[in-house]
Amino acid sequence: MTRPSIDVIAIGNAIVDVMAPCTDEDITRLGLAKGGMTLVDTDQAHALYDAMGPAREISGGSAANTLAGLAALGAKCAFIGQVAQDQLGEVFAHDIRAGGISFATPARPGEPPTARCLIFVTPDGQRTMNTYLGASQFLPSAELDDAAIADAAVLYLEGYLWDPEEPRAAMRRAIAAARAAGRKVAFTLSDAFVIARHGDDFRAMIAAGEIDILFANEHELAALTGIEDFHAGITALGGQIPTVVVTRSEQGAYAIHAGEHAEVAAEPVAQVIDTTGAGDLFAAGFLFGFIRERPLAECLRLGAICAAEVISHYGARPEVNLTELVATKLG
Amino acid sequence: MTRPSIDVIAIGNAIVDVMAPCTDEDITRLGLAKGGMTLVDTDQAHALYDAMGPAREISGGSAANTLAGLAALGAKCAFIGQVAQDQLGEVFAHDIRAGGISFATPARPGEPPTARCLIFVTPDGQRTMNTYLGASQFLPSAELDDAAIADAAVLYLEGYLWDPEEPRAAMRRAIAAARAAGRKVAFTLSDAFVIARHGDDFRAMIAAGEIDILFANEHELAALTGIEDFHAGITALGGQIPTVVVTRSEQGAYAIHAGEHAEVAAEPVAQVIDTTGAGDLFAAGFLFGFIRERPLAECLRLGAICAAEVISHYGARPEVNLTELVATKLG
Repeated sequence: MTRPSIDVIAIGNAIVDVMAPCTDEDITRLGLAKGGMTLVDTDQAHALYDAMGPAREISGGSAANTLAGLAALGAKCAFIGQVAQDQLGEVFAHDIRAGGISFATPARPGEPPTARCLIFVTPDGQRTMNTYLGASQFLPSAELDDAAIADAAVLYLEGYLWDPEEPRAAMRRAIAAARAAGRKVAFTLSDAFVIARHGDDFRAMIAAGEIDILFANEHELAALTGIEDFHAGITALGGQIPTVVVTRSEQGAYAIHAGEHAEVAAEPVAQVIDTTGAGDLFAAGFLFGFIRERPLAECLRLGAICAAEVISHYGARPEVNLTELVATKLG
Repeated sequence: MTRPSIDVIAIGNAIVDVMAPCTDEDITRLGLAKGGMTLVDTDQAHALYDAMGPAREISGGSAANTLAGLAALGAKCAFIGQVAQDQLGEVFAHDIRAGGISFATPARPGEPPTARCLIFVTPDGQRTMNTYLGASQFLPSAELDDAAIADAAVLYLEGYLWDPEEPRAAMRRAIAAARAAGRKVAFTLSDAFVIARHGDDFRAMIAAGEIDILFANEHELAALTGIEDFHAGITALGGQIPTVVVTRSEQGAYAIHAGEHAEVAAEPVAQVIDTTGAGDLFAAGFLFGFIRERPLAECLRLGAICAAEVISHYGARPEVNLTELVATKLG
């Protein structure tokens, strides 16, 4: 087995976030599910955008955010995802490449446009996401570069992208390519609705030993395992998957790796401004420690530090030099 | 003379700002004029964007920013400016309308695309702007609604837009429409380069009594009057124009109105993050006081409060409830 030249290659939605502050009354009035992620069609996206206050656009996408964190920490990364040939597609491509991440998927001509996520942020920092998938759901299996996947130590997959058919087929092919090359497969469950629709797929993949590292939050863990009790649930999953990492918002995070258990408290934050990307950046910090073969507790601490940075400002990509931040925090 | 139903109607560039942090070394390496505004063509815009780090997009444009501040303070506003029929044009139109500002100029089909300003922000908060004018410079005189201009108490014009030919003709027509209706004309000089190219126009307009309120910073004041000494310069101009407002960065601002002089210190800011829009929001605060017939010193204080808010975060549009902020500050 040759030494891979890329640390992490990820497949995910190529999304630009459109973010605006709102009140709790706005959430109620618009009939949104506070704190959740809802897929919206073109008409719903237009109606919600019309109802949204002045916004700002910042590149997003769960796996892409994780890579932005990993690259900021010093990892070599590559991204696979589908944008359209439009201005938002150019914005997404610019931002990911400007972060030092390889991105070679050609933009898709014609309709639909590049994906966007309309994010309403309440004064408590909670984000309510409404995703118009657009071009992102048409990532063709043919666009996968098996050689690039075989050349990365970790293949990182975003659960959100398991929902549309074409990217699901692409991800299945990517898993096969990574496993054939002896690489690790990391998967983030993304949202409870994904598990509601595709839980059987995930459970079958886990049973078949196709997932090496699983990221979830506690709600997704319960949905996947059907076990209410947190410790019972993660312990059961830890018996099936080599590395399981579960985030618990302000209660910190918990991981099991090869039978070893570790836990971390949430990193203190002066003020939670916008929780968008918290899980994505936790995964970035954890994976960075993991690929550098740091102790399990340190991997969790790295995740907590990166998550705390991203929730202290608008947008799901890091805004400070994460390498310096981590060096200061770890001493 | 009927009572106008709009407080301020403005003509300005319809621009989306593309903003990213950078180092002072980046500014030197890219050959940029730190703190200035430079017009760039398509090739230069692409080259600079390629050299820029991960960015965020926030609607901008000098006069549009001023209206965003005015509307946030409770003024009734309308904007005239040219976007293209593209995604950035939709972003600009959404953000201005979501701020409660009327915006009826139809998007322009075909090339060039909507204007953007590539803004490099150094750690000291200073912004270095590189503007690709795109569709913005093709605002046709025919798009002006003379009735709307006659229906606004103040016509506010952006000096930046005096440079391209079509908008200059449109602005001349707007001045005539406003004056015919007995309305006030406010003008912001925008940048020293505009005065270098069009100073004779401005001096002729001032001599002809076509400008009622002039906004400038101290460098623009010196360039316009040819007088080095600040007080001598503003006093000379105050003899020609009913209301003159000059901002002086951390030294605050100075105004002369109908022979009365007033001065304000800069409002303290915990940390200057990004100075983009400081002058635009100063003008917003001042004009709001002006249209509400507040004392001159209070108009200046309103300007200082709004400028301090906008430099405390990224982006040239206000992020807090300015009405509440002003109420708190003025007690």
